[in-house]
Amino acid sequence: MAQFDLPLERLREYRPDLTSPDDLDAFWSDTLADARAHDVAATFDRVDNALTVIETFDVRYAGFGGHEIRGWLHLPAHRSGRLPAVVEYVGYGGGRGLPHERTLFAAAGYAHFVMDTRGQGSGWSTGDTPDAGAGGAPQQPGFMTRGVLDPSEYYYRRVFTDGVRAVDAVRSHPEVDGSRVAVTGSSQGGGISIAVAGLVDDLVAVAPDVPFLCDFPRATTLVDSNPYGEIARYLKSHRDHIDRVYDTLAYFDGAILGRRATAPALFSVALMDPICPPSTVFAAYNHYGAGKEITVYPFNEHEGGERFHDVAKLRWLARHLR
Amino acid sequence: MAQFDLPLERLREYRPDLTSPDDLDAFWSDTLADARAHDVAATFDRVDNALTVIETFDVRYAGFGGHEIRGWLHLPAHRSGRLPAVVEYVGYGGGRGLPHERTLFAAAGYAHFVMDTRGQGSGWSTGDTPDAGAGGAPQQPGFMTRGVLDPSEYYYRRVFTDGVRAVDAVRSHPEVDGSRVAVTGSSQGGGISIAVAGLVDDLVAVAPDVPFLCDFPRATTLVDSNPYGEIARYLKSHRDHIDRVYDTLAYFDGAILGRRATAPALFSVALMDPICPPSTVFAAYNHYGAGKEITVYPFNEHEGGERFHDVAKLRWLARHLR
Amino acid sequence: MAQFDLPLERLREYRPDLTSPDDLDAFWSDTLADARAHDVAATFDRVDNALTVIETFDVRYAGFGGHEIRGWLHLPAHRSGRLPAVVEYVGYGGGRGLPHERTLFAAAGYAHFVMDTRGQGSGWSTGDTPDAGAGGAPQQPGFMTRGVLDPSEYYYRRVFTDGVRAVDAVRSHPEVDGSRVAVTGSSQGGGISIAVAGLVDDLVAVAPDVPFLCDFPRATTLVDSNPYGEIARYLKSHRDHIDRVYDTLAYFDGAILGRRATAPALFSVALMDPICPPSTVFAAYNHYGAGKEITVYPFNEHEGGERFHDVAKLRWLARHLR
Amino acid sequence: MAQFDLPLERLREYRPDLTSPDDLDAFWSDTLADARAHDVAATFDRVDNALTVIETFDVRYAGFGGHEIRGWLHLPAHRSGRLPAVVEYVGYGGGRGLPHERTLFAAAGYAHFVMDTRGQGSGWSTGDTPDAGAGGAPQQPGFMTRGVLDPSEYYYRRVFTDGVRAVDAVRSHPEVDGSRVAVTGSSQGGGISIAVAGLVDDLVAVAPDVPFLCDFPRATTLVDSNPYGEIARYLKSHRDHIDRVYDTLAYFDGAILGRRATAPALFSVALMDPICPPSTVFAAYNHYGAGKEITVYPFNEHEGGERFHDVAKLRWLARHLR
Amino acid sequence: MAQFDLPLERLREYRPDLTSPDDLDAFWSDTLADARAHDVAATFDRVDNALTVIETFDVRYAGFGGHEIRGWLHLPAHRSGRLPAVVEYVGYGGGRGLPHERTLFAAAGYAHFVMDTRGQGSGWSTGDTPDAGAGGAPQQPGFMTRGVLDPSEYYYRRVFTDGVRAVDAVRSHPEVDGSRVAVTGSSQGGGISIAVAGLVDDLVAVAPDVPFLCDFPRATTLVDSNPYGEIARYLKSHRDHIDRVYDTLAYFDGAILGRRATAPALFSVALMDPICPPSTVFAAYNHYGAGKEITVYPFNEHEGGERFHDVAKLRWLARHLR
Amino acid sequence: MAQFDLPLERLREYRPDLTSPDDLDAFWSDTLADARAHDVAATFDRVDNALTVIETFDVRYAGFGGHEIRGWLHLPAHRSGRLPAVVEYVGYGGGRGLPHERTLFAAAGYAHFVMDTRGQGSGWSTGDTPDAGAGGAPQQPGFMTRGVLDPSEYYYRRVFTDGVRAVDAVRSHPEVDGSRVAVTGSSQGGGISIAVAGLVDDLVAVAPDVPFLCDFPRATTLVDSNPYGEIARYLKSHRDHIDRVYDTLAYFDGAILGRRATAPALFSVALMDPICPPSTVFAAYNHYGAGKEITVYPFNEHEGGERFHDVAKLRWLARHLR
Repeated sequence: MAQFDLPLERLREYRPDLTSPDDLDAFWSDTLADARAHDVAATFDRVDNALTVIETFDVRYAGFGGHEIRGWLHLPAHRSGRLPAVVEYVGYGGGRGLPHERTLFAAAGYAHFVMDTRGQGSGWSTGDTPDAGAGGAPQQPGFMTRGVLDPSEYYYRRVFTDGVRAVDAVRSHPEVDGSRVAVTGSSQGGGISIAVAGLVDDLVAVAPDVPFLCDFPRATTLVDSNPYGEIARYLKSHRDHIDRVYDTLAYFDGAILGRRATAPALFSVALMDPICPPSTVFAAYNHYGAGKEITVYPFNEHEGGERFHDVAKLRWLARHLR
Repeated sequence: MAQFDLPLERLREYRPDLTSPDDLDAFWSDTLADARAHDVAATFDRVDNALTVIETFDVRYAGFGGHEIRGWLHLPAHRSGRLPAVVEYVGYGGGRGLPHERTLFAAAGYAHFVMDTRGQGSGWSTGDTPDAGAGGAPQQPGFMTRGVLDPSEYYYRRVFTDGVRAVDAVRSHPEVDGSRVAVTGSSQGGGISIAVAGLVDDLVAVAPDVPFLCDFPRATTLVDSNPYGEIARYLKSHRDHIDRVYDTLAYFDGAILGRRATAPALFSVALMDPICPPSTVFAAYNHYGAGKEITVYPFNEHEGGERFHDVAKLRWLARHLR
Repeated sequence: MAQFDLPLERLREYRPDLTSPDDLDAFWSDTLADARAHDVAATFDRVDNALTVIETFDVRYAGFGGHEIRGWLHLPAHRSGRLPAVVEYVGYGGGRGLPHERTLFAAAGYAHFVMDTRGQGSGWSTGDTPDAGAGGAPQQPGFMTRGVLDPSEYYYRRVFTDGVRAVDAVRSHPEVDGSRVAVTGSSQGGGISIAVAGLVDDLVAVAPDVPFLCDFPRATTLVDSNPYGEIARYLKSHRDHIDRVYDTLAYFDGAILGRRATAPALFSVALMDPICPPSTVFAAYNHYGAGKEITVYPFNEHEGGERFHDVAKLRWLARHLR
Repeated sequence: MAQFDLPLERLREYRPDLTSPDDLDAFWSDTLADARAHDVAATFDRVDNALTVIETFDVRYAGFGGHEIRGWLHLPAHRSGRLPAVVEYVGYGGGRGLPHERTLFAAAGYAHFVMDTRGQGSGWSTGDTPDAGAGGAPQQPGFMTRGVLDPSEYYYRRVFTDGVRAVDAVRSHPEVDGSRVAVTGSSQGGGISIAVAGLVDDLVAVAPDVPFLCDFPRATTLVDSNPYGEIARYLKSHRDHIDRVYDTLAYFDGAILGRRATAPALFSVALMDPICPPSTVFAAYNHYGAGKEITVYPFNEHEGGERFHDVAKLRWLARHLR
Repeated sequence: MAQFDLPLERLREYRPDLTSPDDLDAFWSDTLADARAHDVAATFDRVDNALTVIETFDVRYAGFGGHEIRGWLHLPAHRSGRLPAVVEYVGYGGGRGLPHERTLFAAAGYAHFVMDTRGQGSGWSTGDTPDAGAGGAPQQPGFMTRGVLDPSEYYYRRVFTDGVRAVDAVRSHPEVDGSRVAVTGSSQGGGISIAVAGLVDDLVAVAPDVPFLCDFPRATTLVDSNPYGEIARYLKSHRDHIDRVYDTLAYFDGAILGRRATAPALFSVALMDPICPPSTVFAAYNHYGAGKEITVYPFNEHEGGERFHDVAKLRWLARHLR
Repeated sequence: MAQFDLPLERLREYRPDLTSPDDLDAFWSDTLADARAHDVAATFDRVDNALTVIETFDVRYAGFGGHEIRGWLHLPAHRSGRLPAVVEYVGYGGGRGLPHERTLFAAAGYAHFVMDTRGQGSGWSTGDTPDAGAGGAPQQPGFMTRGVLDPSEYYYRRVFTDGVRAVDAVRSHPEVDGSRVAVTGSSQGGGISIAVAGLVDDLVAVAPDVPFLCDFPRATTLVDSNPYGEIARYLKSHRDHIDRVYDTLAYFDGAILGRRATAPALFSVALMDPICPPSTVFAAYNHYGAGKEITVYPFNEHEGGERFHDVAKLRWLARHLR
């Protein structure tokens, strides 16, 4: 890819006029209240991860609708005292994977919680959590249009709620210091991070990388790549549903939800990203409601900063979590 | 595409050794008995199809689990007496479409029933029937791996049962002669036709075109195109589920189910078909349990005989239905 | 495809400054006079179309140069009185097809005339009419550059004239009401519709969908897809013929010819169309000389509105033809 | 490309059973007699080629049907005595090009005649000769299916005859030694060379490189690349013309015509050639009727031996022409 | 990809007849003796890896020609006694990466040595070691043809020697138990592992995954993907160097070198691997000189078993190293 | 390709603000002085080129660092007096090729010198000159990033110096008139031509076609095609080297070096060129320091004007060299 989107100087000022639904706050406060009517009931069962320096626990907790959500909790094998925690959401198509698969933040000394994304996990990594509550309505293959004709049926209502409850779950662990919790993730994981940042008001840090699920009107007409392309293909078929679809998506747009955030954020963006184009990331960044920084990777596609950004992010997290 | 599969003389003899599950008959007799415990309760509501020579009715009937399945019934506007019927199943990703969209068999003088495929219909044509009963387990995008770890949860258990009940539904219409019912369809529609032919014993004709859902072991390792490729990609991720997946698929393989068929069949196959490769079609054809013919299109891909085959099929149907 | 062309608000105002050749009127009045020097001599022979609700007639008539042009005339099997007629031109590469293949407007109650496009019909549908009069000069594969160095030798001079004569031919049928004739078509068929609308002054409706053959200077430099790309590839080779080619094309550009139209029009356009990009459609629409409406399909490529637009167009035609 | 065709040891023995039409000899003797009923009437007009070491003449002569065919004759600027001649036929889509464009054999000291291929020359090089005699029947874009339903109308009947007459034309030049004439060409030029070798019995050398137009039954089903793919795509559409097309092609197949050859030949073949697959080249080579050698390029695609083979061919020609 | 190579039952028996160069043993004993004439002189400098559970050391040691080679040594932060070691070689195009990037075997409790591959490390991960000793001869982009006309100049002579010396280097660390050293790697890393297994006789385990650099004659003609394709493209250009290139490659072929191995091996292979096709892996496996097992991943491409195979390999290594 | 870059009217004014390194003049004067410290020592050995009208000599001379550089000198076989000379540099990936391969300017009567490009010549043509002096540092495959972290190590420092010395070498031949030397080349050859024009002040003509190596900041972010894409891919990996890389490239940018040129120039550019996009060519053209013309090919990609431009360039050269 070349730098196909706006030039960087215009990206830094790109702040699209996206209308927040009138009942956005009520929608989400009702949604979270319903979820919290179920006890989070997190359980943590030690599993063999084949490693000696990290311990891993199989987690089950009550997400949206009280549905059982799975995850991993990784802790340094040698530890003492209550640990700050990093909650990680994974990218589109993947699941929590195998126990040893994703342990960076535990290796850096944190309690590291990886949330399984309901229904996902048959792609680049595996998952174990069904999407209970899916109605089965006709949709494009994938998750982007599952229930998209109605905000209360939309897939990401369930996922974002699971994400909020993941924070509740990790805080319920006796070795975690619940006052020092950060959320992070890349792509879809970044989009969930922004949403959770807008829905939970006492996080201490938010680190979305090349986030997905932001500025849907631009994203769905600027690129045809997946996963945004699933929406465009749905509308290619359902020519009569365009307005309804965008009405739904407005409840889940990171460039809208992120305005509600209160925790400091470190974003990253890649200027050649054809999956989550940089303008959509800057839309969320420029609208983000709290202190923020952004690291720009001019020659990267959707992989973004990868290992280079791990280092930057670990240093930034250390400043907020320690 | 070139003729990438076996040469024609070997295709004509290709008869893979596919093992039928021990409880195949019980599985399907139980499944159909459960479905028929619900009254088919078909309703037919006239809709405006913008045409003058064909009348269209919006159909609702009880499919698998008693779930409401939609369809269209098209009748010639000028008609008299009870009509023979053609039940059509549609290809992967499509739905019943708009009322005027698919009316060939009505234009040829038959009662023409088009079944909506549950959950599908956000692709090349639109649908209106949700896949009630889907459990939401992690799957590859698409329908091929929905519930694939368990035959009783597998998506096509529901669809094939809906297909059998569509025959029941059309027979319940007062203007249809239930003793003269044929089933047909292309690709997935052809695969459903073969399955229904194996599950309903008093059809008078079966006409599968370039059928899908046949000889899964070869199909999933010979081509990487969709939809068979969804299974391969699921197994690429879920390396530990290979045996379970093939155990499930054996209950739904047209090269196994078709052995039970009793009605005469007209198949068609295309020798350059990269979606439903010709060996998989011949696997079903060579195993088919009743009288049969096959029309070979040497230079076609998955479109098969198209309009040319319409003519051949209409003539063949006339011999069996009139 | 994404929405790669101008944004919709600019498309609505896009009105390129295209120069009409000085002798455009004389060129076309001479051309049509020459053609009409031959009797249209339309013949209509009933053929077996395998359908019961529509009758089909094999048509032969005198087109450009008096050459025999083929077509189908479809009539509702049950009919009375003189019928309004819809003349349909087909898309690039196709022909009139088989007798039962394209009967929508007859199914809706009209006399439905399908013109075979000379020389075409070896692609997605078949044809039966040679391009008598082709000189055999070096050209790019396809029809776009056949005779392109001289307006009087250019392929579309023959085709547009055939299109005008198709209207004459259908009007010669005793069951057709010649005062109620509409023309329509998609892609190339839409381009011919616009041209015929500019050359015949007593049509009652014109319905071009995603029309081709409009705003050649922009089309040939904005996209490299076929068929416009044939022109670009010809000029890639014949670097010395650029001016001559554009001089010729100006006689055949829908954004120029359509200015002469007098019948009301319903256009359709797709905002992700990489074959007939939306700016070229709006060029023709904004220049169109009579009353007009346009239906915009934001998420479609060259398929445009398909079945959805069938419904819209049938309703619009009913207002003008009935 | 990999080596996708048969392994080399099997290629060396591949000799397909291709049936020669009963009237093949009569067809071609009649065709050539008709052509020779016109005086070849070659004219040679000096043109400015911008070079100092080679002189170029614009040639016109009577080809099939007496149609005017163009060519270039290149002669070394410093020469004496009558020169042996090399007649070169060009590849598919190209024409004779500009005067200075293709002069290798003149630079090596021969009279070098380049035949323009009628109708072609809007692709990688330009041409100046129309295909007079084309009937305009529906065909796939390109030349492979022009008139393909009837051997006497088929495009290559005209081209091969032009090729024979090119030999007659060069022999009519006063500075050429007509007893020392070779023919050569690459791809289509190689196919024409083989055909001319089968139709002219007093050539002294034939050098076809990666020849096209050989073993049509295998070529059209083994690869889908152009130009063989034009035939497959025509038959994809015209499903009812398969036998007629192959009946026609048998009159023009290098693996049949080459059996009649009497001059020694140097073939070249590339084992990764996806355009003219090696088995089709070996089909012609193994059937070739006179002395022969073949140079194998294991890692090349359709470019074959290029400059390396120039050297080999110039040395081989020197042995036969000097 | 589909399963494009031989069927599994034939793969299990595929044992190509590859000729070992007469002087293979002398070539490698001389090469290693020359290298060992330089003191290995390994240094280990602690770096900040941003992790708390693993310590990382920047390694420099003398490789081929005494050139300075870089690497990382990762040790568990909490450790005691001398540790068994795993030496890891990385895949084509990558380098040792950042300090925290590749630490699996340290996380599992081993001394984990990652060798930087000279000249590489500007692709999917970064490197820091120049390829001192490269002569600059014309080559295809990439490393496969660097010096390929002469075994003593060939790139992999330097790399394999570096790989042997990496074992020497890790053994020189005071916390490593030199009697318990395993080598492993994926793709190129697997190929180097096999070579080192053939050149070092006291390893305790060898674990090559989807290994590269095996059975060159088949690999370079069966697939055109990179990196094997670099060789084919070189020979496409240098048509006169085919024999010389294969003569060189025979000194470096894992299916030849591996015959000399004495340590038990766990291979893995993927049946849809288009980069290192399964037959080339089985060629090395079937020729491997010591005890061996192979794990087959039927639906994977070049990623192979990934995280699933990590688990299998860690368990297998534990049996040999602990 | 379409015309994807700026419209022509803006291209004609595109003059990017590129900063020349402060020490640019010193860098190059030192570099050339060092090179000229070695005697050019050109030798010319007659080789057999299989041609009769042109004689070819194998050239060896001292380039950068005194390294032996190869080339061909072609002279008309019949000649008298001292000839003006054309020095040609070849495109990326190619080498000087075989002796008969590239002789146009000799055929037009000039002394024609073809410089081999060090290290290249394993692609579309072959080469014989190693890149002595390469340090082997990690780089992307290809030549664009060889030594790119330091101007004095960068590959093109060596190549441009070789190019300057090629002029010196041809001038040392007794049959060459050293006061009448032109330089030319296409793509990389055009880029070298511009650089040499900026480094040698007594050339009489410069003819760069679709030149490469101009306006790196735009080129590397506008297109992702090779060879510019090699730089982008290097920076995708080496995220920490962006500034260093651009600092280096500024010493080698044709839009900077060309400002120093004193000889008249004929540029050519293609408006659909995805390899050397037209804006980067116009950047160099608009900055070029002496008299200049540019020929625009609106419908061409990177092939540019090809044979048509040969003619234009030969005429233009004749005006300056004769």
